[in-house]
Amino acid sequence: MSYNTFGHMFRVTTWGESHGPAIGCVVDGCPPRLALSEQDIQPFLDRRRPGQSSFTTQRREPDMVRICSGVFEGMTTGTPISLIIENTDQRSRDYGEIAQTFRPGHADLAYQSKYGIRDYRGGGRSSARETAMRVAAGAVARRVLGDGVRIRGALVQIGQHEIGRNRWNWDEVGQNPFFAPDPEIVPVWEEYLGAIRKAGSSVGAVIEVVAEGVPSGLGAPIYGKLDADLAGALMSINAVKAVEIGDGFATAAYTGPENADAMHMHDGQVMFESNHAGGILGGISTGQPIVARFAVKPTSSMLIPVPSVSLAGEDVQVVTKGRHDPCVGIRAVPVGEAMMACVLADHLLRHRGQVGDF
Amino acid sequence: MSYNTFGHMFRVTTWGESHGPAIGCVVDGCPPRLALSEQDIQPFLDRRRPGQSSFTTQRREPDMVRICSGVFEGMTTGTPISLIIENTDQRSRDYGEIAQTFRPGHADLAYQSKYGIRDYRGGGRSSARETAMRVAAGAVARRVLGDGVRIRGALVQIGQHEIGRNRWNWDEVGQNPFFAPDPEIVPVWEEYLGAIRKAGSSVGAVIEVVAEGVPSGLGAPIYGKLDADLAGALMSINAVKAVEIGDGFATAAYTGPENADAMHMHDGQVMFESNHAGGILGGISTGQPIVARFAVKPTSSMLIPVPSVSLAGEDVQVVTKGRHDPCVGIRAVPVGEAMMACVLADHLLRHRGQVGDF
Amino acid sequence: MSYNTFGHMFRVTTWGESHGPAIGCVVDGCPPRLALSEQDIQPFLDRRRPGQSSFTTQRREPDMVRICSGVFEGMTTGTPISLIIENTDQRSRDYGEIAQTFRPGHADLAYQSKYGIRDYRGGGRSSARETAMRVAAGAVARRVLGDGVRIRGALVQIGQHEIGRNRWNWDEVGQNPFFAPDPEIVPVWEEYLGAIRKAGSSVGAVIEVVAEGVPSGLGAPIYGKLDADLAGALMSINAVKAVEIGDGFATAAYTGPENADAMHMHDGQVMFESNHAGGILGGISTGQPIVARFAVKPTSSMLIPVPSVSLAGEDVQVVTKGRHDPCVGIRAVPVGEAMMACVLADHLLRHRGQVGDF
Amino acid sequence: MSYNTFGHMFRVTTWGESHGPAIGCVVDGCPPRLALSEQDIQPFLDRRRPGQSSFTTQRREPDMVRICSGVFEGMTTGTPISLIIENTDQRSRDYGEIAQTFRPGHADLAYQSKYGIRDYRGGGRSSARETAMRVAAGAVARRVLGDGVRIRGALVQIGQHEIGRNRWNWDEVGQNPFFAPDPEIVPVWEEYLGAIRKAGSSVGAVIEVVAEGVPSGLGAPIYGKLDADLAGALMSINAVKAVEIGDGFATAAYTGPENADAMHMHDGQVMFESNHAGGILGGISTGQPIVARFAVKPTSSMLIPVPSVSLAGEDVQVVTKGRHDPCVGIRAVPVGEAMMACVLADHLLRHRGQVGDF
Repeated sequence: MSYNTFGHMFRVTTWGESHGPAIGCVVDGCPPRLALSEQDIQPFLDRRRPGQSSFTTQRREPDMVRICSGVFEGMTTGTPISLIIENTDQRSRDYGEIAQTFRPGHADLAYQSKYGIRDYRGGGRSSARETAMRVAAGAVARRVLGDGVRIRGALVQIGQHEIGRNRWNWDEVGQNPFFAPDPEIVPVWEEYLGAIRKAGSSVGAVIEVVAEGVPSGLGAPIYGKLDADLAGALMSINAVKAVEIGDGFATAAYTGPENADAMHMHDGQVMFESNHAGGILGGISTGQPIVARFAVKPTSSMLIPVPSVSLAGEDVQVVTKGRHDPCVGIRAVPVGEAMMACVLADHLLRHRGQVGDF
Repeated sequence: MSYNTFGHMFRVTTWGESHGPAIGCVVDGCPPRLALSEQDIQPFLDRRRPGQSSFTTQRREPDMVRICSGVFEGMTTGTPISLIIENTDQRSRDYGEIAQTFRPGHADLAYQSKYGIRDYRGGGRSSARETAMRVAAGAVARRVLGDGVRIRGALVQIGQHEIGRNRWNWDEVGQNPFFAPDPEIVPVWEEYLGAIRKAGSSVGAVIEVVAEGVPSGLGAPIYGKLDADLAGALMSINAVKAVEIGDGFATAAYTGPENADAMHMHDGQVMFESNHAGGILGGISTGQPIVARFAVKPTSSMLIPVPSVSLAGEDVQVVTKGRHDPCVGIRAVPVGEAMMACVLADHLLRHRGQVGDF
Repeated sequence: MSYNTFGHMFRVTTWGESHGPAIGCVVDGCPPRLALSEQDIQPFLDRRRPGQSSFTTQRREPDMVRICSGVFEGMTTGTPISLIIENTDQRSRDYGEIAQTFRPGHADLAYQSKYGIRDYRGGGRSSARETAMRVAAGAVARRVLGDGVRIRGALVQIGQHEIGRNRWNWDEVGQNPFFAPDPEIVPVWEEYLGAIRKAGSSVGAVIEVVAEGVPSGLGAPIYGKLDADLAGALMSINAVKAVEIGDGFATAAYTGPENADAMHMHDGQVMFESNHAGGILGGISTGQPIVARFAVKPTSSMLIPVPSVSLAGEDVQVVTKGRHDPCVGIRAVPVGEAMMACVLADHLLRHRGQVGDF
Repeated sequence: MSYNTFGHMFRVTTWGESHGPAIGCVVDGCPPRLALSEQDIQPFLDRRRPGQSSFTTQRREPDMVRICSGVFEGMTTGTPISLIIENTDQRSRDYGEIAQTFRPGHADLAYQSKYGIRDYRGGGRSSARETAMRVAAGAVARRVLGDGVRIRGALVQIGQHEIGRNRWNWDEVGQNPFFAPDPEIVPVWEEYLGAIRKAGSSVGAVIEVVAEGVPSGLGAPIYGKLDADLAGALMSINAVKAVEIGDGFATAAYTGPENADAMHMHDGQVMFESNHAGGILGGISTGQPIVARFAVKPTSSMLIPVPSVSLAGEDVQVVTKGRHDPCVGIRAVPVGEAMMACVLADHLLRHRGQVGDF
């Protein structure tokens, strides 16, 4: 089966292959009368775009998005918004070899096994190129959420090198090629990742995404819990192997008192004294910041050979030439933000429909 | 919004509150002509049932399931299967106090914020009692999957005490009250959890679920990836804060060669030399065992007081009396298995419809 | 496949067989804080209940509905509402013969062909008994719509005998066993239907349902148009073969000017001068009354023999003994109202979520 | 709300406005390894294309479809198929007036009421131009169904002029500009429609669509019945006001024996002696031809003035200049076929997934 839509009321359907003529998405369910133009979307695509440093793939594409429907005189109309990016730098000659072999860690074998056919050029549908449309849809989702909701992501770990949590500074995120919130980690990562790249190797990473200003009450228990939908959305990103909300796996080692987020009243408002829960209880937002983290495995495309098998059923050594990110997790930062935005926009509309106003 | 259905072709809708007259579920989309009776479901419910050791809540209910539709002369008919469990031991007097205060870590405040009303008795809809119906539905899902697919879960961590991975023995899981696969950890956990219980505290845990015999090709890219659906399903379980597939968060620290699951041919079959990916690539099963882990936070109900607020907007100290599991993660083992079974059954039917036979 | 849920935000899942232990439904997505008790639902079930005149089946069941979840202290909580009716008068001896033969016009052959198994007792899942749960769900939907929306149905044709449209009086509908809005047609139908019944035959009917007070703006273009959803919902009722909105098939013979619903302003409001469109344009409600009509074929169960085939593949003559409505269309009136209510409640919540307040 | 997707396993999402830059659709869930190219789709678009006779709008567009994803080396891959048609002949100057007034019978007022904004150019999203993408998707659906299923449509009534049923000849349908299966009606319609056009008026029509070779067992009771899904799909076509299956409304006047489709065995097969049911019983296909009819109201765009209101709240007379079909029902024939194809393809995949092979 193929299933390329997510969301209930804010629904995003993506299409397109890495080396096909174009990629695109349809955003259905966006409320009307929101100001929207290509200029609202393009900056987010630019943040994700490859080729901006030596640490991301050298594939160079302008990734210019075009709005083909759903916007009239600069405003959304409530009809589906079609977003399209033409593929311009396809260079399919780089990928000819992978037609005959299955790259370990990639979807090659799985797609072949499932469909009996695959567009092997650049990974086809399973390429991370698809995430460009997530980012585009996320930009629309931000308009739905409005200025009161702020969604930001940062890279917090590359390999075994973690940021210093006590040095976290959101303003730093845009100042380095890693989306790092800690300036002291930047030279460490530069040196480490430079060595990884020279060795033709790759490495994993952890991304954290935080949404502030999210009103309490979002979430659709039991099987559309906000954290469950977030977990599914983040896990659907290419190469992601783990997701946690709030303190996540660490809570397994906590006792009850260590885990409890105590509350008190302050000026007539409920104030939390900690946020181990990551802003979600019972699948519903509490008004605290929503905090999610996810792990991205090392880029499977490497110059270091790995034993594998061929379409013809022979043992082979696979070396993946071409242009690849040594740490695909870096560019996953804007993608994670986009998924957070889409899930929140969807839940905002669901909540408003069934329970009341935002 | 409320959303109480999961699955696309194998769809489960649950209903019921902890202290309402009954709880139940409707399993829609089960194929016809499968042998099914209450005896196929009851053993799984019995494994999850409370009151079986001093480490789980002393609430005692037989949890006898009744099939009310969809089965004729011992066989499924292809029509919806209604499963109902009457609530017999409701003792609502235990829970009277929580009507006026919000228990930290529980869904109380979130439900009140969202709906403006809540059935506070025993947590109402947000109670882990709902998971009984997940287990019942999971038993039906196992019939759909057939005997070739084996799904097993185990507890691998309580607090900071982890099992010895090199001592893993599935046969031990049924021999102790913890679903522990390692006999040497049992006395450690007994002593630790006994102290936690006496202190009126609680603690978190980690569960691992493994599905063997799953055919390759299950998964619906891009937004119904098998791992994404699993992540959402497991995160939707009460008190779960984190999910990982295969090596999960550990992959962030791996290099590409460390993470790669090399392959070779053996007797005409593709053999993997490791399973860091947990049996899923590109959102599609590879034929290897599907491996998922999830963290359950400490039980929020404790005898140790926590600062909180009341419905009336006053600062209070909350102590949750009544019968509670000191480690709710223990009983999450059969629930995790059930969610794995439901997700796989759904994807099996989706795959068969669109791509071909099982 | 089996698919027993309808609606997007106001979702109804029904289950149960004619002669199983019980039938029921789960209403998910009902907003919180609506007053609801069995007394709000029972009167609608009583209107549909068989055995109330010689023109409906003599099966006598109290059809007492029980709310098993989703309501707390007389108010909806926003969690799923489980409604159950125990089957009390099953008398399966009446139906023993149909196990071996396929009754023409019934679903017997189709279910056997699809599923390879069927609960033949009283038609099993395909029995019109399922419509009791539609009526129950419809009663909940009316609470969602509120008192400002009035939904009423009437029988307008039995066989070739149509009501006099110029004599339409809603107050008459409750005064006769036919839900007839025209008192002059009542003796005509009584005599006609008495003869049909004595002959062991049956006859078809047409029902009209009108919803007044529906706000403009409901409808989800393009594939959730209000009229499309209504058509699907009404066609899903047992034995329905045709649906029309507004003037329906008659518009095929109209010219443009005859069909146009002219408008003018009156006290700052748009006033329509006619309602050929039945209150829906472009799939969206206009504020005019929503008008739908549907045709119910003759009851397929008759004492008059019809050539058919047996499970064993032999030619047989089928006579359906037992208790049957000579005109099943009569009891379809409250069912049609219920489907209208459910569709409107669903669209009200969808509209409110995405576009604004009611 | 906006909802622009239909189908469960074979899912079609359309987008685009009449005078936007392009229109398109995404077909998700198409099985892999089906031969597909633009040449398989274009002929169906050509049948629907305007400007082919004096009886359809003179808007002239080549309507060249482009496959942008989901096909590799001439075969479907199982990934979403994106189909796009650029709008070339937009001539928006024709439609400037309708920005300020609401055309009776059109969606203008309803969209304005719902969304508070509308793309008025050519009807925007509510234009019948959207149906081009239905036809394109229908061509893909035909590949899913294979050559064993034949779907054909015909025009059977214009105004009060019906075809002679006893003269029905499918071969005639392609021989005249009306899709008429009766050559004797052609001159009647030509003369009648010519007069309608000269008068600046319009007229309604009835279309019949028949699917032969459909296997028994398709349909998803209770809320995905084949006839219910067909009714919803056909009613969703622009200007459709009524749908019937088999003998439809006529069955209301039948007695049971008149309506019964008797069966007998012939060479080990069940043979039906009539098809009043239109090939569907209990919502499931029986193996007989599926027969559906739908009514299209007169084109609302006319040169004859109709009283209406303006955006500014004033009484006006609306005359719709520009290029319009005097009988929009003619071009609805290929659209009705396409909807039948899509619904059947969806149900084929659903059936195969849950119950067994085709």
